[in-house]
Amino acid sequence: MDESRAYAQALDTQDELARFRAEFVITDSETVYLDGNSLGRLPLRTAQVLQQMVEVEWGERLIRGWNEGWIDLPSVLATRLSSLLGAQPDEICFTDSTSVNLFKLGVAALRAHPDRRKIISDALNFPSDLYVLQGIIDLLGQGHCLELVPSHDGVSIALEDIQQVINDDTALVCLSHVVFKSAFLYDMPTVTRLAHEAGALILWDLSHSAGAVPIQLNACQADLAVGCSYKYINGGPGAPAYLYVRRDLQEQMVSPLWGWFADRRPFQFELDFSPAQGSQRYAVGTPPIISMKAIEPALDLLEAAGIERLRQKSIQQTEYLISLAQAWLYPLGFTLGTPLQAHRRGSHVSLRHPEGYRINRAMIEPQTSTLRVIPDFRSPDNIRLGIAPLYNTFEEIHSALWRIRQIVASGEYQRFSSKHLAVT
Amino acid sequence: MDESRAYAQALDTQDELARFRAEFVITDSETVYLDGNSLGRLPLRTAQVLQQMVEVEWGERLIRGWNEGWIDLPSVLATRLSSLLGAQPDEICFTDSTSVNLFKLGVAALRAHPDRRKIISDALNFPSDLYVLQGIIDLLGQGHCLELVPSHDGVSIALEDIQQVINDDTALVCLSHVVFKSAFLYDMPTVTRLAHEAGALILWDLSHSAGAVPIQLNACQADLAVGCSYKYINGGPGAPAYLYVRRDLQEQMVSPLWGWFADRRPFQFELDFSPAQGSQRYAVGTPPIISMKAIEPALDLLEAAGIERLRQKSIQQTEYLISLAQAWLYPLGFTLGTPLQAHRRGSHVSLRHPEGYRINRAMIEPQTSTLRVIPDFRSPDNIRLGIAPLYNTFEEIHSALWRIRQIVASGEYQRFSSKHLAVT
Repeated sequence: MDESRAYAQALDTQDELARFRAEFVITDSETVYLDGNSLGRLPLRTAQVLQQMVEVEWGERLIRGWNEGWIDLPSVLATRLSSLLGAQPDEICFTDSTSVNLFKLGVAALRAHPDRRKIISDALNFPSDLYVLQGIIDLLGQGHCLELVPSHDGVSIALEDIQQVINDDTALVCLSHVVFKSAFLYDMPTVTRLAHEAGALILWDLSHSAGAVPIQLNACQADLAVGCSYKYINGGPGAPAYLYVRRDLQEQMVSPLWGWFADRRPFQFELDFSPAQGSQRYAVGTPPIISMKAIEPALDLLEAAGIERLRQKSIQQTEYLISLAQAWLYPLGFTLGTPLQAHRRGSHVSLRHPEGYRINRAMIEPQTSTLRVIPDFRSPDNIRLGIAPLYNTFEEIHSALWRIRQIVASGEYQRFSSKHLAVT
Repeated sequence: MDESRAYAQALDTQDELARFRAEFVITDSETVYLDGNSLGRLPLRTAQVLQQMVEVEWGERLIRGWNEGWIDLPSVLATRLSSLLGAQPDEICFTDSTSVNLFKLGVAALRAHPDRRKIISDALNFPSDLYVLQGIIDLLGQGHCLELVPSHDGVSIALEDIQQVINDDTALVCLSHVVFKSAFLYDMPTVTRLAHEAGALILWDLSHSAGAVPIQLNACQADLAVGCSYKYINGGPGAPAYLYVRRDLQEQMVSPLWGWFADRRPFQFELDFSPAQGSQRYAVGTPPIISMKAIEPALDLLEAAGIERLRQKSIQQTEYLISLAQAWLYPLGFTLGTPLQAHRRGSHVSLRHPEGYRINRAMIEPQTSTLRVIPDFRSPDNIRLGIAPLYNTFEEIHSALWRIRQIVASGEYQRFSSKHLAVT
């Protein structure tokens, strides 16, 4: 393990994706941004696209914008995203938020299995997903139960534990492909197969995996999926979400939300709902065009880089980060809150420390250093370091870990109190 | 009735709101935009705000943006909007689309009245609202029925007809405050009282009235409301929607959608949902910040003009438009598709003509004139002329009506076929 900065710089020199960093707005060379797993950076072209959208499409073309591209925008984005997810264009629908989409598909899945009562998730899942499932159970009032597979180490979920709870009473298995806190990456093909063997449907939340790891929804025969586009997809804060429904399930299942954008002929203004073909029937209301416009230039970059190359670099960078942590931070009381095996890990690394919150504060608000490092913190003790291989460099990782060591070794973090607020 | 252009110009000179037109992006003096009831114009300052939002808040501040204003943005907007709707700030929640909000409140209302089976709406209501209600009935599977009060003239709904169908089996009355096609304006206090006398809840869709007519939700004791912000509020295409839940109902009713933004402490990432106080419990997922940013500068203009003055000008302008139509267009086969009484009319005027679709096309795509008039068309025969008193002038109305007369008198519309597509 070469701990020198020169080695990090050499890795950057060899990086065939290095040129993509220049495609993003990066104004502050003294800031290392390691939170692309929460909010991705702004692509240069997005700023131009949004200005054109606002000033010309809205400002000048006005209502005509709908017939000049807006109406097709969600399906254009769906087509673009489908290749990233290993799905067909008509299996994806860009619409609503991740939670609203999870609600639609969760309800539809339970209604498709009226004789089954069990929903399986895990204790590491993103709480909003669990809340949505709890709300569905409360709404349907049919005695469904949500069973959470426990984690023995707070990091990963054992395949055997999943296998043990899925049975012939299981209607739905609902999991995050990559877990938000630990970056544990599920074996999607195997878990999907386990669900199917028991006759259950599976719903994957791709929020922390889309744009970071290769996804093959069709090849796995995955049934349902949802995800956001503001993390590794770089679509901007609160960017529109998407859903996936495998083609043969689209007309078998019924969304509970029948808005006009789900109708076969919305502009006929007929009084009775008649669902559209394909995944469009899982849309609801008028799409948020300004926010949607930001997604296309972001997808351009992912496509140009290629998800396989991005994954390769992501693994190389997370491995490098973990090596430096082992050398510099484990002696200071840090432990790894992320799977050590690369094939079970997404694109962020959680480092755990009892003083994690205060260390995280000192990283963001430096006093003794000119270097600012932006991670995020997840209670009780996780400092999440997100690697976005489109723009993060090896040298940034070197700088960030060096800085963490300095903060802890010097006790600099002690100037902060322990009260905290954080946002995903 | 003075039909001269000079008279229109004189009215503009006397207009105390005339200065607001300069607050909007208006690049093309040869276009009369009469579709602010579908998509409002771009306020000048919105373009600047969005550029700052994208380039600085997202591009430079990145994830820190959440703690520097984004997280509070929906409630800041709610506070601003509440005064326009005659409600308390904690009764409004900016979130999701109008249809998703209608679903949440519709389900909550029916669950609050488990012993009642009837939902009342009307045959002129916006189809998406009816579709959502149909979806709810299908979802709950408890034998609810949706009864649509008919319209005898295709323009208005008689109060007696509403009164007749509301009874002690009515759980919910769900109506558009201003009807999308005809601009019929309900008597909100009276209809709300009728619903309450029967023990039913009432849900108003304010999409076509907010920003156009004064609304006093609290004074009417209205229970529930939803609405969009892309029409008279000028928030941009597909701008985020809002909902209203009267304070005393907020904790009695249960939203079916339990997302993390509805949780009391979303950043604690607890596994069990615990609803937030106030209307926040009707939020769901991460809000679309870019689209939300566009709303505040738009609200500035509405507040500065004042809803009472806007309404006064709107009435004056719709009366003027109807007078010109009587003089110039009725002889050409047009009829009024809008209530003649100003106090029963919103801020748009529908003119009906058997050749409405082709006339509308000729208005948008002029051949013999340099003047382009942008209305919208609603089947089978409605040309909707939206008056946005913040930026429409009397002279524009004069020009538009003159142009319609020319199109019909000359037969110019005959160069278009009858097939159509239109967007609200």
